Amino acid sequence: MDNALCRMNGCDFPLFAFSHCRDVVVAVSKAGGFGVFGAAAYTPEQFEEELAWIDAHIDGAPYGVDVLVPETVDARVTSFTSNAERAAAISAEHKAFTADLLGRYGVHIPEDQQTRIREGAGITPENGQKLMEVAFRHPIRMIANALGIAPPEMIAEGKKRGIPVAALVGAKEHALRQAAAGVDIIVAQGGEAGGHCGEVSTLVLVPEVVRALKGAGQDIPVLAAGGIMTGGQMAAMMAAGAQGAWCGSVWLCTPEAETSPAFRQKMVDARSRDTVRSKARTGKPARQLKTAWHEAWDDPAGPGTLPMPLMGMVSEPSFAHIEKAVVNGNEQARDLVSYFVGQGVGLVEAERSCRQVVQDFREEFAEAVMGLNAMLED
Amino acid sequence: MDNALCRMNGCDFPLFAFSHCRDVVVAVSKAGGFGVFGAAAYTPEQFEEELAWIDAHIDGAPYGVDVLVPETVDARVTSFTSNAERAAAISAEHKAFTADLLGRYGVHIPEDQQTRIREGAGITPENGQKLMEVAFRHPIRMIANALGIAPPEMIAEGKKRGIPVAALVGAKEHALRQAAAGVDIIVAQGGEAGGHCGEVSTLVLVPEVVRALKGAGQDIPVLAAGGIMTGGQMAAMMAAGAQGAWCGSVWLCTPEAETSPAFRQKMVDARSRDTVRSKARTGKPARQLKTAWHEAWDDPAGPGTLPMPLMGMVSEPSFAHIEKAVVNGNEQARDLVSYFVGQGVGLVEAERSCRQVVQDFREEFAEAVMGLNAMLED
Repeated sequence: MDNALCRMNGCDFPLFAFSHCRDVVVAVSKAGGFGVFGAAAYTPEQFEEELAWIDAHIDGAPYGVDVLVPETVDARVTSFTSNAERAAAISAEHKAFTADLLGRYGVHIPEDQQTRIREGAGITPENGQKLMEVAFRHPIRMIANALGIAPPEMIAEGKKRGIPVAALVGAKEHALRQAAAGVDIIVAQGGEAGGHCGEVSTLVLVPEVVRALKGAGQDIPVLAAGGIMTGGQMAAMMAAGAQGAWCGSVWLCTPEAETSPAFRQKMVDARSRDTVRSKARTGKPARQLKTAWHEAWDDPAGPGTLPMPLMGMVSEPSFAHIEKAVVNGNEQARDLVSYFVGQGVGLVEAERSCRQVVQDFREEFAEAVMGLNAMLED
Repeated sequence: MDNALCRMNGCDFPLFAFSHCRDVVVAVSKAGGFGVFGAAAYTPEQFEEELAWIDAHIDGAPYGVDVLVPETVDARVTSFTSNAERAAAISAEHKAFTADLLGRYGVHIPEDQQTRIREGAGITPENGQKLMEVAFRHPIRMIANALGIAPPEMIAEGKKRGIPVAALVGAKEHALRQAAAGVDIIVAQGGEAGGHCGEVSTLVLVPEVVRALKGAGQDIPVLAAGGIMTGGQMAAMMAAGAQGAWCGSVWLCTPEAETSPAFRQKMVDARSRDTVRSKARTGKPARQLKTAWHEAWDDPAGPGTLPMPLMGMVSEPSFAHIEKAVVNGNEQARDLVSYFVGQGVGLVEAERSCRQVVQDFREEFAEAVMGLNAMLED
């Protein structure tokens, strides 16, 4: 296939794979798609190691990175400069609430592990900046940003090095702001997407963003994101004006992914209605598999969710302990197993390799186009 | 164009127009689409008159009807058998709340008009049944039902007369139940749709329903609904497995529609984020243009929404008075003007005739297919 986006990023088939797992990135890029490595969970040192591994294994295939440089920071956390300070701001009530909630499922978490204090990691503007600097030392073919306007340094450095800068948006107005700031690719992500997302659906958002950019004289390719699990849906969004698809959830049910067998089983079993857009994992609205964790944190009668990055400092060790409990035979803990995933989870039927997913997308894409042509010709 | 759905319903282009306005139904069917007349607001006598008018003006073009026969009725209203009884169940608190809310926008509603008591109208199982009987006395080419499984009498009568029965669904499981009950067409309506809707997006729901029906050995055409305002989106959903598009919102900004000039102006101005899925108009979750009315009724601190059909008995006279106030020069009342509309409202740029909308869909559809082909050929 060939379009402006393929030429810009050097890929053969404009299927983008967002993943926190280097194996997925490498497998997808080698299969003709375009792997995008999500840096958010890493320290700059770990990120450097991961990218070095990718460079050594990807056989020169193109890949990109996604860093999170939040544009706005909750007023409750702006004064903190270290994760130790941030952890100290988490109230005893929130900690007791967490321990009680996990305890009801037989998951016990030692008090000293209840809050994750890992200096140099976490979604903060300073950390995002450092991750960006690491990324530019590698042969990336794209750098993406989410949670606000891409920082000026990212755009300047991208232009200097000829590396396209992509930005994730959930609303037309944000796409226009990003384009005005100088980004090269817009990822229009609908509200059905896993992870941080807005409320407008992919089917509405994609043509809305494409039309708005055209109206503003911005000739920028748009990637469709949110709910896309098949080549038929990818063809659909390209019929609606996108130049490619950006997928996250579909890679989570592959053997290459970082996900646990327990979560992958839940993906296979889940219906599309089993996700929720909730602040209960990162502190900002993100779609994920719905569990009692989300019900409890989103309950107005409870202590309420914490701002980013505090919420993640509580939720990540909790979910790690939930996974450990399942491995250790606690069947009850399976109920709490969760991860970021979109409504498209209802379309997952089995675990497949990344290469197989890319191959299936290609075939389904071709079938969808043939089907449309057949209807017009009859 | 030609596919199973076009053959089944006798239309040339599988663009379905759901409308409560006979003029829209006639204009769309005459332009080669398929008008579907929504009966819910009418008494059986009025419905008879409307259908007779359609028969006299549609020049033999095919059209259908949509009746609402709710499968379940809220336990709070099951004991009532007349609208007078239902009206008596609306609390003084709810009435005062309404009057106060409207009053803040300078809209005054006489106490005796605050609740609409129109015997023989309203969304109830008995009324739905009567409307259905009226429909079958006319040369309809399809009868659709929403809010639950189509009643057995509708399916039996449809089969006897060779009239396809369609059912609106918002979840895969509901599609399978409808198919098992014997319906001929499934309308898979995503959560971005105007009016009663579920939570799964159109882009996910359509392929999910198509795949589930195929898996169950049910060879039933699927119409995509929710968010579709352009031929590009229609092509998109047909690439994803639908045989046509069912649209409601796009017809509301036409001169033929029942909507007021004030509402049409709000449609042109609205962003896709300006809608809300709320119980504040009918008592069941329905997407509509968001206003202070919805914020107040959905506020947990308020008296809360009423069950169907009580909520409509309060909301409809209120919205009628809001519209009247605008006509009489109350600019403040414009803020409260609202109607059922989907997220696709963000794609509405101007008022167009129904014929023009159908023509634009055809052209955009062809362009979308050509664009896809060009990418594959390069």
